[in-house]
Amino acid sequence: MAGLLGVAVLGAGHMGADHIRRLGQVVSGARVAAVADPDLDRAKEAVADLDGVTVHADPLAALAAPGVDAVLIASPGPAHEEPLLACFERGLPVLCEKPMVPGSTGALRVVEAEARLGHRLAQIGFMRRYDAEYGRLKSLLDGGGLGRPLMLHCTHRNVSSPPGFTSAMLINSSVSHEIDAARWLLGQELTAVTVLRPRPSAGAPEGLLDPQLVLFETDRGALVDVEVFVNCGFGYQVRCEAVCEQGSARIGEDHTMLVTAAGGAREEVAQDYLVRFADAYDREVQAWVDATRQGRVTGPSAWDGYASSVVAEAGVRALESGGRTAVALAPRPDLYADVSR
Amino acid sequence: MAGLLGVAVLGAGHMGADHIRRLGQVVSGARVAAVADPDLDRAKEAVADLDGVTVHADPLAALAAPGVDAVLIASPGPAHEEPLLACFERGLPVLCEKPMVPGSTGALRVVEAEARLGHRLAQIGFMRRYDAEYGRLKSLLDGGGLGRPLMLHCTHRNVSSPPGFTSAMLINSSVSHEIDAARWLLGQELTAVTVLRPRPSAGAPEGLLDPQLVLFETDRGALVDVEVFVNCGFGYQVRCEAVCEQGSARIGEDHTMLVTAAGGAREEVAQDYLVRFADAYDREVQAWVDATRQGRVTGPSAWDGYASSVVAEAGVRALESGGRTAVALAPRPDLYADVSR
Amino acid sequence: MAGLLGVAVLGAGHMGADHIRRLGQVVSGARVAAVADPDLDRAKEAVADLDGVTVHADPLAALAAPGVDAVLIASPGPAHEEPLLACFERGLPVLCEKPMVPGSTGALRVVEAEARLGHRLAQIGFMRRYDAEYGRLKSLLDGGGLGRPLMLHCTHRNVSSPPGFTSAMLINSSVSHEIDAARWLLGQELTAVTVLRPRPSAGAPEGLLDPQLVLFETDRGALVDVEVFVNCGFGYQVRCEAVCEQGSARIGEDHTMLVTAAGGAREEVAQDYLVRFADAYDREVQAWVDATRQGRVTGPSAWDGYASSVVAEAGVRALESGGRTAVALAPRPDLYADVSR
Amino acid sequence: MAGLLGVAVLGAGHMGADHIRRLGQVVSGARVAAVADPDLDRAKEAVADLDGVTVHADPLAALAAPGVDAVLIASPGPAHEEPLLACFERGLPVLCEKPMVPGSTGALRVVEAEARLGHRLAQIGFMRRYDAEYGRLKSLLDGGGLGRPLMLHCTHRNVSSPPGFTSAMLINSSVSHEIDAARWLLGQELTAVTVLRPRPSAGAPEGLLDPQLVLFETDRGALVDVEVFVNCGFGYQVRCEAVCEQGSARIGEDHTMLVTAAGGAREEVAQDYLVRFADAYDREVQAWVDATRQGRVTGPSAWDGYASSVVAEAGVRALESGGRTAVALAPRPDLYADVSR
Repeated sequence: MAGLLGVAVLGAGHMGADHIRRLGQVVSGARVAAVADPDLDRAKEAVADLDGVTVHADPLAALAAPGVDAVLIASPGPAHEEPLLACFERGLPVLCEKPMVPGSTGALRVVEAEARLGHRLAQIGFMRRYDAEYGRLKSLLDGGGLGRPLMLHCTHRNVSSPPGFTSAMLINSSVSHEIDAARWLLGQELTAVTVLRPRPSAGAPEGLLDPQLVLFETDRGALVDVEVFVNCGFGYQVRCEAVCEQGSARIGEDHTMLVTAAGGAREEVAQDYLVRFADAYDREVQAWVDATRQGRVTGPSAWDGYASSVVAEAGVRALESGGRTAVALAPRPDLYADVSR
Repeated sequence: MAGLLGVAVLGAGHMGADHIRRLGQVVSGARVAAVADPDLDRAKEAVADLDGVTVHADPLAALAAPGVDAVLIASPGPAHEEPLLACFERGLPVLCEKPMVPGSTGALRVVEAEARLGHRLAQIGFMRRYDAEYGRLKSLLDGGGLGRPLMLHCTHRNVSSPPGFTSAMLINSSVSHEIDAARWLLGQELTAVTVLRPRPSAGAPEGLLDPQLVLFETDRGALVDVEVFVNCGFGYQVRCEAVCEQGSARIGEDHTMLVTAAGGAREEVAQDYLVRFADAYDREVQAWVDATRQGRVTGPSAWDGYASSVVAEAGVRALESGGRTAVALAPRPDLYADVSR
Repeated sequence: MAGLLGVAVLGAGHMGADHIRRLGQVVSGARVAAVADPDLDRAKEAVADLDGVTVHADPLAALAAPGVDAVLIASPGPAHEEPLLACFERGLPVLCEKPMVPGSTGALRVVEAEARLGHRLAQIGFMRRYDAEYGRLKSLLDGGGLGRPLMLHCTHRNVSSPPGFTSAMLINSSVSHEIDAARWLLGQELTAVTVLRPRPSAGAPEGLLDPQLVLFETDRGALVDVEVFVNCGFGYQVRCEAVCEQGSARIGEDHTMLVTAAGGAREEVAQDYLVRFADAYDREVQAWVDATRQGRVTGPSAWDGYASSVVAEAGVRALESGGRTAVALAPRPDLYADVSR
Repeated sequence: MAGLLGVAVLGAGHMGADHIRRLGQVVSGARVAAVADPDLDRAKEAVADLDGVTVHADPLAALAAPGVDAVLIASPGPAHEEPLLACFERGLPVLCEKPMVPGSTGALRVVEAEARLGHRLAQIGFMRRYDAEYGRLKSLLDGGGLGRPLMLHCTHRNVSSPPGFTSAMLINSSVSHEIDAARWLLGQELTAVTVLRPRPSAGAPEGLLDPQLVLFETDRGALVDVEVFVNCGFGYQVRCEAVCEQGSARIGEDHTMLVTAAGGAREEVAQDYLVRFADAYDREVQAWVDATRQGRVTGPSAWDGYASSVVAEAGVRALESGGRTAVALAPRPDLYADVSR
């Protein structure tokens, strides 16, 4: 099995099982070496078609399993910090699903630990950076042909929210994607956030403030507005318009098939993020495997994971207070000075 | 009533009544002076809201009525030739709905009569020339920025055909619009026609060859293909793509409102030509009134009406024979040498 | 000239001259009877092609001119109040361009004067209500098929601002269109406004806060956000997306011709509001003429003009303060209880 | 290296090198075991980054190299027949780029040889069947929701043709993609072909009949028209509209990013088939690797390759004669009775 990157996957739930399938059947250059999940049966089921995979209840045991060259963390957010720090100790490259660590305090501990190492080991799973349309928009903005970006208008809609989804989760789970995408597209940090709460939709569960309009300010004077609406009823829709000094550019309006029949012309709207961003997930993991095999660490950094946590926390406070909340980041370690912008 | 153009309208059916409404309520500078229809009750009903209109069973009587300065012919095609020739005798400007005269023999008589007069009096009702989108496409082609046009791909779809609609009428009633539009857009005469007949749609009445694919060749080597489908079931849809040496241009894809709801994103499709081309009809009649008040005759000429008849006749023969049919036009009188191209 | 509505047009500048042309050549059922402008030469020039029009320096003299049945006010905003009140005294129906009266105090005087009359005479020139796309969106929302509207996302962009344009004018001149459109589309009053100011575009004149993001709250819990950007450099672009409980609908994305050539596929963007809304202006004036000839007053009312003034004033205060500003309307007179919703 | 499919790649030119890269870096479950090219240096260069690959001048030697489990033929068309037959003798699964064999005589020999084997080994490289948009259109048509397909309108445009491109190659190289796509989408054989030749574009090399309009009839009465224009100057554009009894569906209008700047709204048009269909190539090869590892043969069959050759030959005759040319297929061996429809 020489040459293939042996990966320990932590978590065999929805996302973890999908990554196991991806590493085994889609991505080249890697193989699944170990899987950890508190539910051992679930872990076994996820690797039923694969050979040579060890299964563990304890994530740290999976890290120590034979043939493990790198780690992919897809367990629930609160379970991320411990294995991240363990990866740093063992020198294991790690791809960690978002949120890196749910709160900013824990996220800062991860940043500081990696900064002490002096080199990057972690890539955070902000997969929109690997989406082809986002990539084109980033290139366009970086190219400068439209001048400086002034505003981003973003839309993030889901058909319906899962049980137990809270008003705060619209921000720290859903909008966290836009938080990273805005930082990355603009190459700017977010400095303040305000959340407007229209009267909730009749389609939202009792008590859920859905939709919300979330407004971010940046350190170079740009504005980002995000409509987040997780019970829109019709589809999964992610759009972004960058308004620049000399023009605007929009993505997320994908017309892949136009059907005209009685009732008018219709286009499909994706129902799910795994459909809309299937290629982005593939590219993300492939890029991580490729870089890891070459001994490099690229992509979204622990700093990006930390900054996202801080902004999301400020967003939740803004949601609760109804006012504008400033965002306070810790000083940025030198390790992340030139990363990902 | 000084200054308003007094118009005699021949025919008070669907199209005639619409033109009476247009002259009375939409168009400025004109008034309805007389109406003729064999069904006097229908004529009276059409002018119920108007003052000072005389009503006639005989079209020639309407032409002679007091206050008639010009004539609009909206009676059935076979009734057009006589009043057209009468208008020429009396020197009355006339706007004649299409078809000018159903067969090419009668159409040629009209052309020859007007050519003998030595000046134009007739404008033919090819209203697509007054549609804003067609106008933009014509300007683009005439501007030459895309190089020489090589092909036109046209679509002409109706929800369903009226009772009694025949296979030949797909050509001489429906496609006759594309015949004129192609001649006008390209500034070329059509020289041959071939009609392809796919297996008819289950949605077409028994025996009707619907859809058809009609192919025209032009005197400067361009090709025009027209999908005509008069029982498409979903809407009235008229599209045209001009493929040129340096680019292509399309019209007829109008997106006026995009609605996204469960089931996907939808756009309306117009159900009817009176909706799709409402503005074009208004512009056509307004342009005719304006020109007539200034003593000018502009717009589609009797030659255009004649050429359309000849091509449509050749098309019907091509439909019946299954082969390619050449188009033979009479020599073009000098009167029409520089017109409308 | 029996039957034609004789109109006195006040103001013969850009907008006034366009309305004179419209009444004379486009709209049916009306004629220009008198024109007033302090610059008599300009007034004379505007009516050079028309017969039977008297020309005046004093607007009140024009109101008293022979043959005047109704009044169209197209003079600068500060000159509106006096002739509006004079029309009420004389019982003359009046179409008044926006802003009805620049400040809310004067606007309220107009409302109160008309309320004292006990019947409406004034229609205010919010012409977006007559645009076909806005009309379809209004019908869709009123139909209720998409559920209750939750948010409107609006864009209002101009190529460049005229000399002397101030930061406040982005709100009280440009956004005033969205203020009325939002009130009309939603059938709700606006209750608070916040203005966000990203770093101005390099394309904006020194000192102009351009673009701005203006946020309105309504009395039934909807949110309206407006990007106003009057030096966007590329075109005149007015878009509106209504996000409802069961779907969203967008207008203003008009695709009238798609040209594909080296460099990609291109669509035209209108450069000017007179182009984009040409038909809306025609429909507005035609509707006013038709209603007036029938003795009715329809369309946007003096209350709509007043409400727009109050909201615009609150918006300017919000721009200056950087905070949220509540909107306080006077009690609504019974006359306007059922109007235009 | 247990478990990875060892592939011999024949041909290390443009297409071959791309497939070598794909097998080595994109596709999971496979590795390049051997490469053959008459130009040994080119072969060596193509595998410079790979380990354990043997390089050969003789394709048959590559088939016999150690570790070869399957074969991918990417050499020029005339070199396909011999290794295809050799694969059949050795029982090697083979993915063969189009054209399977340039002439229908040779193509029939391949079909007959595989039919004698009694089971399929060959998959032909009609990669549009693996494109996501084509896949959606196929599903829609198979689902039957739009009724029976009546016509396909296809567009196939390239920026410019390579040196030496002939008028016949517009059909047997370019349109051959539409030939297979039409057979697959409709599940029907093509029975006749007519080629219309508008006056060539000034942008086409001297003597090249470009563009052409190619018309196919099918055994169940559908029509397929294809505009092929290989010097269109602006991009690589592949579109397909299926007109059915109850609606129409279009693909190939991909809007991935809409940029609005001075000059209008623009969308990118892909410049190259490797860009437009990059994902389809990946999916095609991945599907072949997956099926081969499971001992199955799926995808386009040798019969599809043969039928495509016959239709292309008839097309070239139709181009030369200017008339309609019937298509005569040999009887279909039972092996292909149920394949790929």
